[in-house]
Amino acid sequence: MHVPSLIEKKRDGGILSDSELQFLIAGFTRGTIPDYQMSALAMAVYFRGMNFAEAVALTAAMRDSGEALDCRGQLAAALGRPMAVVDKHSTGGVGDKTSLVVAPLVAACGVAVPMISGRGLGPTGGTLDKLESIPGFRVDLTKDEFLAQLGAVGVAMIGQTEQIAPADRKLYALRDVTATVPSLPLITASIMSKKLAEGLDGLVLDVKWGGGAFMREQKQARELAEWMVRVGQQAGVRTAALLTDMNQPLGAAVGNALEVREAIETLRGGGPADLRELCLALAEEMLALAGVEGGRALLEERIASGAAMAKFEEMVAAQGGTSLDMDAQLAPLRADCAAADDGCVQRMDCARVGLVSMLLGAGRAKVSDAVDHGVGIEVLKKIGDGVQRGEPLARIYARDEGRLAPALEGLAACYEIGPEPVEPPRLILEAVR
Amino acid sequence: MHVPSLIEKKRDGGILSDSELQFLIAGFTRGTIPDYQMSALAMAVYFRGMNFAEAVALTAAMRDSGEALDCRGQLAAALGRPMAVVDKHSTGGVGDKTSLVVAPLVAACGVAVPMISGRGLGPTGGTLDKLESIPGFRVDLTKDEFLAQLGAVGVAMIGQTEQIAPADRKLYALRDVTATVPSLPLITASIMSKKLAEGLDGLVLDVKWGGGAFMREQKQARELAEWMVRVGQQAGVRTAALLTDMNQPLGAAVGNALEVREAIETLRGGGPADLRELCLALAEEMLALAGVEGGRALLEERIASGAAMAKFEEMVAAQGGTSLDMDAQLAPLRADCAAADDGCVQRMDCARVGLVSMLLGAGRAKVSDAVDHGVGIEVLKKIGDGVQRGEPLARIYARDEGRLAPALEGLAACYEIGPEPVEPPRLILEAVR
Repeated sequence: MHVPSLIEKKRDGGILSDSELQFLIAGFTRGTIPDYQMSALAMAVYFRGMNFAEAVALTAAMRDSGEALDCRGQLAAALGRPMAVVDKHSTGGVGDKTSLVVAPLVAACGVAVPMISGRGLGPTGGTLDKLESIPGFRVDLTKDEFLAQLGAVGVAMIGQTEQIAPADRKLYALRDVTATVPSLPLITASIMSKKLAEGLDGLVLDVKWGGGAFMREQKQARELAEWMVRVGQQAGVRTAALLTDMNQPLGAAVGNALEVREAIETLRGGGPADLRELCLALAEEMLALAGVEGGRALLEERIASGAAMAKFEEMVAAQGGTSLDMDAQLAPLRADCAAADDGCVQRMDCARVGLVSMLLGAGRAKVSDAVDHGVGIEVLKKIGDGVQRGEPLARIYARDEGRLAPALEGLAACYEIGPEPVEPPRLILEAVR
Repeated sequence: MHVPSLIEKKRDGGILSDSELQFLIAGFTRGTIPDYQMSALAMAVYFRGMNFAEAVALTAAMRDSGEALDCRGQLAAALGRPMAVVDKHSTGGVGDKTSLVVAPLVAACGVAVPMISGRGLGPTGGTLDKLESIPGFRVDLTKDEFLAQLGAVGVAMIGQTEQIAPADRKLYALRDVTATVPSLPLITASIMSKKLAEGLDGLVLDVKWGGGAFMREQKQARELAEWMVRVGQQAGVRTAALLTDMNQPLGAAVGNALEVREAIETLRGGGPADLRELCLALAEEMLALAGVEGGRALLEERIASGAAMAKFEEMVAAQGGTSLDMDAQLAPLRADCAAADDGCVQRMDCARVGLVSMLLGAGRAKVSDAVDHGVGIEVLKKIGDGVQRGEPLARIYARDEGRLAPALEGLAACYEIGPEPVEPPRLILEAVR
């Protein structure tokens, strides 16, 4: 096959065949198709899109570019019996610590949850960064350690390996520097290729929309959810998605140690109502895909009985964590951002909350940036809450004075307070199954 | 400046500023901006286009990426007086040997013609390949040799140097393998950056349209002509273009030595009427831009007097050519393609004539292909000509029997013969000045 002709075909709105996409991804992974052809193709895909069959074939080609983890088969072999294996993935948002709650909670119901996460860029670190705010916690398990822990504990959380879907890592890095990230089929293939390489029975996707999400529009997010669910199902993995709100931070905590602390509170039956609700909804979807009866009642029982928290502690211990006293990890400087007026929170600039958190040091602007696990924000007032002049809207945890003042100023600008009463946004918009 | 943001700007239909385009081209030329970003940008330009100001800035940035030749200044310094310097460029077509006629003809009128040509891919070789069918002819003069000959003879023909507009060479090679060649602003900048680096008083462009041209549609070709003329004028070079027909080969000869032979016939006052007409029209534009009085009458006098042919011989001798007996260079096998019916030539598949010539060995499919100077086609019947069954339509000159039969078959398929009388196509559609 002649690569320029394939680029031309897509450029002119044509449909790439399964074998053409396999050829392109295999060649790109091996390095026989150079970056400059793949970036031109990505830009043509940005403009022309792909049909669903192309997205399925692209995802499969990327999944098959590396090692298949086969969690399901390995686990069944190790245990001598089949065990449902279900994972969860979020498109990411400000204060999203649901994985820390949902994975042990579902594992406590007898479902294996192999969680492979990225670090990612942006407002707060990824799940890995959050976990690393636990002293001693190791996210770099070997494949064998990971599978052994999955069998023994039922849940393990590690970073993306070099072996899984290398085409995605290479393509994402290229898209990131060629303005070709925002493309529905490319996003679908990027997320799904990695997840489908794990060897799952089921996959639940949390697709976020709004000011603090990658997808700013509900319509885009719904489309992404539908594509990912269909691609997963096409690949033989039971897949469902929840379309959820990210127009304000999820829960109160934004920042790594702060978010672990909030996840622990939630696993202990407390935590903010919105976080708890979303965790239960996601976990319920996971149980359903795993074919485990009991639903919401079972999940609530596992929290109330302490089984969910015990599972989390078991996982932390298995991965080397030595302490769950997250207060000890928090940065020393604290300051509250106070309301300038009486009224009701009309809306929040959620992306900016994330930016403030990143500038405090909780997230990364560049891949090479280090993360400060102790800094962050506690969001005390959210959309629809009444406030009085002088009342704290949010609390900042900072490492140094120099970052405190701009963070306070930035955070104040995230709040729009007005006289009208406002309904809080609907957290879970719909399920896509 | 942040390259991904500039790509994104163009991707979203924004306008790149002069300094942004300078930054992009300078970085790309130096290698600090990698190919994969430039190819993504080129694809975004393919989809979004550029406005005229962007095309001007892009052309200037590419022109300034290497050495300025300053023919005009160098020549004036060498001669101790100013001499008008005018070049001519064709967008290329089947049987287009006008440069070989026009350059010595105009030089014989006292205008310096510094002709820097590419080899190019396609049906027949470029001007350089045609010249190399003259035994001994050297196209690799040094810059000093080139300028010295320009002063002494008034005309010299060489290949593109590494020093002139290196950004264009690099960008064109990239566009060629990333399906980003057909873009009006990129084509404009590619052609004009090289020409504007020569240091000219005037430039005449022969922009061809039709089945055998790069621009298949008249409208596209007119637009390209208008853009190039405006970009040239904006850069301070008097520029004009003729929009000319390429729905059938120009003249009769297609193939390197055959074309030189036909150019010599034309310089001697013979040659096919269409070739002669186009050469005179182009030369007339060049004289006008040079500010030389006399026009068509002067040109005809220079041919009739033998001055034009003498100038050609002087140039050939200066560049090492040892013989103009082109018959001696022709391939030994000849065969005629005969008409299958009585009638009139309705139309020709001009691109296919070029393809047949290429398959005979006269052109290149790949840059690394060698050219056979002796093979080619003599087109005996053209659109509007009456033919009788069995009468020769075209004659093939081949190196070996194996290529003869498919060439005959291919050539027959280039002719559509029908009963209706047909007007020959209008050769010169319009002038853009």
